[in-house]
Amino acid sequence: MDAAEAHIPSGYDPQLYRIRHSAAHVMAQAVLERFPGAKPAIGPPIEDRFYYDFEMKRAPSEEDLAWIEARMREIIKGRHPFRAREVTAEEARDLFKNNPFKLELIDNLIQGGLDEFGNSLPERERPKITVYEHDTFVDLCRGPHVPHTGYIKANGFKLMSTAGAYWRGDAQRPQLTRIYGTAWRNRSQLDKYLKRLEMARARDHRRLGRQLGLFTFSDKVGPGLPLWLPAGALLRETLETYLKEEQLRRGYLPVVTPHIGRLDLYRTSGHYPYYKDSQFPAMTVGSADDSDGYLLKPMNCPHHIQIYAEGRRSWRELPMRLAEFGQVYRFEQTGELSGLTRVRAFTVDDAHIFCTPKQVKAEITNAVDLARTVLDALSFTDYRVQLSLRDPADTGKYAGSNEAWNSAETAIREAANDIGLEAVEVVGEAAFYGPKVDFMVRDALGRQWQLGTVQLDYNLPERFDLSYIGSDDKRHRPVMIHRAPLGSLERFIGVLIEHCAGAFPVWLAPEQVRILPISDKQVDYARSVLDVLVMAGMRVSVDQRSEKAGYKIREAQLRKIPYMLVVGAREVESGTVNVRLRTEERPGAMTVAEFAARASKVVRARKGLF
Amino acid sequence: MDAAEAHIPSGYDPQLYRIRHSAAHVMAQAVLERFPGAKPAIGPPIEDRFYYDFEMKRAPSEEDLAWIEARMREIIKGRHPFRAREVTAEEARDLFKNNPFKLELIDNLIQGGLDEFGNSLPERERPKITVYEHDTFVDLCRGPHVPHTGYIKANGFKLMSTAGAYWRGDAQRPQLTRIYGTAWRNRSQLDKYLKRLEMARARDHRRLGRQLGLFTFSDKVGPGLPLWLPAGALLRETLETYLKEEQLRRGYLPVVTPHIGRLDLYRTSGHYPYYKDSQFPAMTVGSADDSDGYLLKPMNCPHHIQIYAEGRRSWRELPMRLAEFGQVYRFEQTGELSGLTRVRAFTVDDAHIFCTPKQVKAEITNAVDLARTVLDALSFTDYRVQLSLRDPADTGKYAGSNEAWNSAETAIREAANDIGLEAVEVVGEAAFYGPKVDFMVRDALGRQWQLGTVQLDYNLPERFDLSYIGSDDKRHRPVMIHRAPLGSLERFIGVLIEHCAGAFPVWLAPEQVRILPISDKQVDYARSVLDVLVMAGMRVSVDQRSEKAGYKIREAQLRKIPYMLVVGAREVESGTVNVRLRTEERPGAMTVAEFAARASKVVRARKGLF
Repeated sequence: MDAAEAHIPSGYDPQLYRIRHSAAHVMAQAVLERFPGAKPAIGPPIEDRFYYDFEMKRAPSEEDLAWIEARMREIIKGRHPFRAREVTAEEARDLFKNNPFKLELIDNLIQGGLDEFGNSLPERERPKITVYEHDTFVDLCRGPHVPHTGYIKANGFKLMSTAGAYWRGDAQRPQLTRIYGTAWRNRSQLDKYLKRLEMARARDHRRLGRQLGLFTFSDKVGPGLPLWLPAGALLRETLETYLKEEQLRRGYLPVVTPHIGRLDLYRTSGHYPYYKDSQFPAMTVGSADDSDGYLLKPMNCPHHIQIYAEGRRSWRELPMRLAEFGQVYRFEQTGELSGLTRVRAFTVDDAHIFCTPKQVKAEITNAVDLARTVLDALSFTDYRVQLSLRDPADTGKYAGSNEAWNSAETAIREAANDIGLEAVEVVGEAAFYGPKVDFMVRDALGRQWQLGTVQLDYNLPERFDLSYIGSDDKRHRPVMIHRAPLGSLERFIGVLIEHCAGAFPVWLAPEQVRILPISDKQVDYARSVLDVLVMAGMRVSVDQRSEKAGYKIREAQLRKIPYMLVVGAREVESGTVNVRLRTEERPGAMTVAEFAARASKVVRARKGLF
Repeated sequence: MDAAEAHIPSGYDPQLYRIRHSAAHVMAQAVLERFPGAKPAIGPPIEDRFYYDFEMKRAPSEEDLAWIEARMREIIKGRHPFRAREVTAEEARDLFKNNPFKLELIDNLIQGGLDEFGNSLPERERPKITVYEHDTFVDLCRGPHVPHTGYIKANGFKLMSTAGAYWRGDAQRPQLTRIYGTAWRNRSQLDKYLKRLEMARARDHRRLGRQLGLFTFSDKVGPGLPLWLPAGALLRETLETYLKEEQLRRGYLPVVTPHIGRLDLYRTSGHYPYYKDSQFPAMTVGSADDSDGYLLKPMNCPHHIQIYAEGRRSWRELPMRLAEFGQVYRFEQTGELSGLTRVRAFTVDDAHIFCTPKQVKAEITNAVDLARTVLDALSFTDYRVQLSLRDPADTGKYAGSNEAWNSAETAIREAANDIGLEAVEVVGEAAFYGPKVDFMVRDALGRQWQLGTVQLDYNLPERFDLSYIGSDDKRHRPVMIHRAPLGSLERFIGVLIEHCAGAFPVWLAPEQVRILPISDKQVDYARSVLDVLVMAGMRVSVDQRSEKAGYKIREAQLRKIPYMLVVGAREVESGTVNVRLRTEERPGAMTVAEFAARASKVVRARKGLF
């Protein structure tokens, strides 16, 4: 069994792996009883779940799945032992003679037993062929499994869904039916998982993105290219404006650069042709000669470097902090695209700081502090920083001098410490061009994301031969810092949507207040309230449709609008509004001025709800 | 002479044409006297000027030009008549036997006298070959000229500059020396022109763009792709924010769309392959098959249409006004690029309004009113609108119904009238897809620019099969309105820079206030003044360099900063600031609060200086 254990992926709970792997076999047995002609292909455990692929005439119905589940429970209760047995190639071929998938797998295994000339390897070097048996089912399998089927809990597993899948993931090969299930140590673990799944589904940013009118995709425009709808565009803009103001306060200089650049620019930076495969194809002009071509920008740094390099720079101009919400492009495979979290065009809240070696610490501290301020304003409270440092045993492979690295690593450490952030140091994880600080953020569902980043760069200043004239009147090389508090705006918003389930912090909500007149008679009053709140700088609308108040409230709830102000005859008479929150709390009647004051305070503080 | 007159381009003052054409001949005579081996090529009048190209061993020096000018005056005073003479091909070839350029021109003329098989045309169908003679100079020339050289005023012309030029504009052919001159009816006209030129040069947006740190270009990024420097980025952003707020107030919905789209999108819209030659090359993916390709967007409309089309639309949602500062791309030839006014990537302050036919008038009125509001805020006061209407004699060539056009044209007229704009109607100038309103704006130098535009479109809703469900529960076709109050943001800013000579309206100035401490002792006070003004929402800096106050003031003047606040010991003591304006007016000492109140008022009003 030791050899079998070696197949458990690192990080996977070994017992859960065995339970799920065994549940896949039990499921296959039940499927074959229900669909005698079905041919099993492969059935591995995956994260939180397992599946088995079958070639079968029709996909199982709900009813079939219920039957299979019930039958699995019986098999489980039978406590049938799993028995491993090593077989020869001939035995294996005979056992699975009616299953072309298993025969192909056997062939592959045997090829592993041939040398590069097709000759058989000596016995001890040949891979072993094993089968696992339980009850009536036998499978080509390298394990491991639980001792007997009773180790799978009859109330600890569940079949989840079915899907189409190609044999070996190849669209040219037969289409199979995949049945997904999940299995846990016990019922309580299973329930927790199902609950978590339900929450994640309810928070899925693609679903909420549609419900809240934030963004959409269009086949005609292209996959992975989000179109931001009005509410989403307002959200983006509010987020950008906030960051721009924070940055102006901190001495950043805004710049705007084109989305394309000549191939030669990226040859100098090293982005082309090195990363060619993950880029949109070049636009070649005139001849096929690439030197005349343009590329959608893979990064903003080369453009910002051109701005730095457009004049002779003096130490008096440093630190120079060039900031831009810069769009960059990656040609991800369509299969890898997913909502906003994996796209082909995204906006980096980018800045490049050019500074002297002595300024590095202050600049890192400022950048880390900005990232922290931003995460706080966005209701992320559970995060730590990861410091990626050099491998001290292999200093030769890094750009930049020893002293520079030492002082930068010290600066990074001190910055995290000064700001009071929990920091984890990872030695050997630095890029060759410099050490970095990454913000690892845990969302409301407990998932961890790498968001903001601060990276030193000793490489690009060399490649572009950047310089400044020091106070000694001599030419010096500046240090460059890349930093992005959010990273990709698209991905960040995707994560944020799921983190707050679409109930954005009030300051960021695309629509902050919706006024709901009970009847047409209150529409004028509602509009006068709107005017007051707009003057107070809030994003407000009036729902003046001739619908019941209850209907209007429900719709505003679905849109996760922080404040609903119901106005009826009483409110008109007393010059008040009746306040409801999206949490269904009801602060009740108050004057327009009082509401405006309290709501504005929440917006200014970027915290709380009312 | 009648035939010669026909060669004057329409719109060119015929007498000025004759004067300049004759001055070119006189100049050529003088050049040949100074450079006996020079070979004249061609020498036409152009806008405001004339030139002559010569093959010569060296370019003329300042001294040479002075000599040539002096000699031209003598020739002018000689009142030598211009005489036209028709010649045969043989005579012409003999006359210019030492000048390969003229011989080539003669060959071209003769080819015009051959039929498509190379046979001579009958005499009456052959183009005539004429030469013009005066004094000692004879030129292959079709005229027209003034009667004698005395018609050119000796104090009404001036040689301007020299430049290199290729024979026939072809870099593969000989390089020639071009000498530019200008000539007018009299000295006063000449002086006015030179004055205008000097003003335009001082206001050249490329020069001011550098002086004010607004933008730059980089060979490595590519020609025609502006990089916005900090002051320019702030200016752009302030302009965009202003327009965005105006638009939100007017019920526009912001959207954000990608800079690229699939080729198929542009096949449907008709932008591809029709406009292929003016576009960046497509990015073809995988195979050479275009259907898998992407294009930098030539227009924003197809993307906005995809947003409109992403759901089933009801009449209740109309008018839907989708607005975006959308970047679009044109692959202009490098020779046609010029600063910000002709670029390869520009930002349109775009919006597309989808509405019912009944809503057309209100929407046009709103759009025209917005354009007017924006021009007023930007200190353009001299403009009129041009209404481009259908040719009523040829209604068949237009998309959309007769009734739609009639009511749209009436709407356009009434909108201009309601808003009180001077309007010029141009029949037959409408696009095939709809009538339009263009803002024709005159700048401070008297030049006219076509800026904002409002265009109806009956075509794209057809091509994309757009619809909405009317109150009758039936499917209807919406009308689409394209509108852009500024047009291209880049071009507009280029025009604005020259219009106001870099002295932007206060609300738009990237840096509104600069505080100038007289010595280091006032720096703390200066920073406290800065804090007060920043709180009041102004863009302020402190010049805390150890430089003389006069030096700091001059530099701030050069940057056209509206307000300079000088603070010395006296100001610190009395809590005041000493105000100077960029116009060199000096309102003098006042409290910080008083200055803040007055300046804020100017900003809010978007008018005046102090």
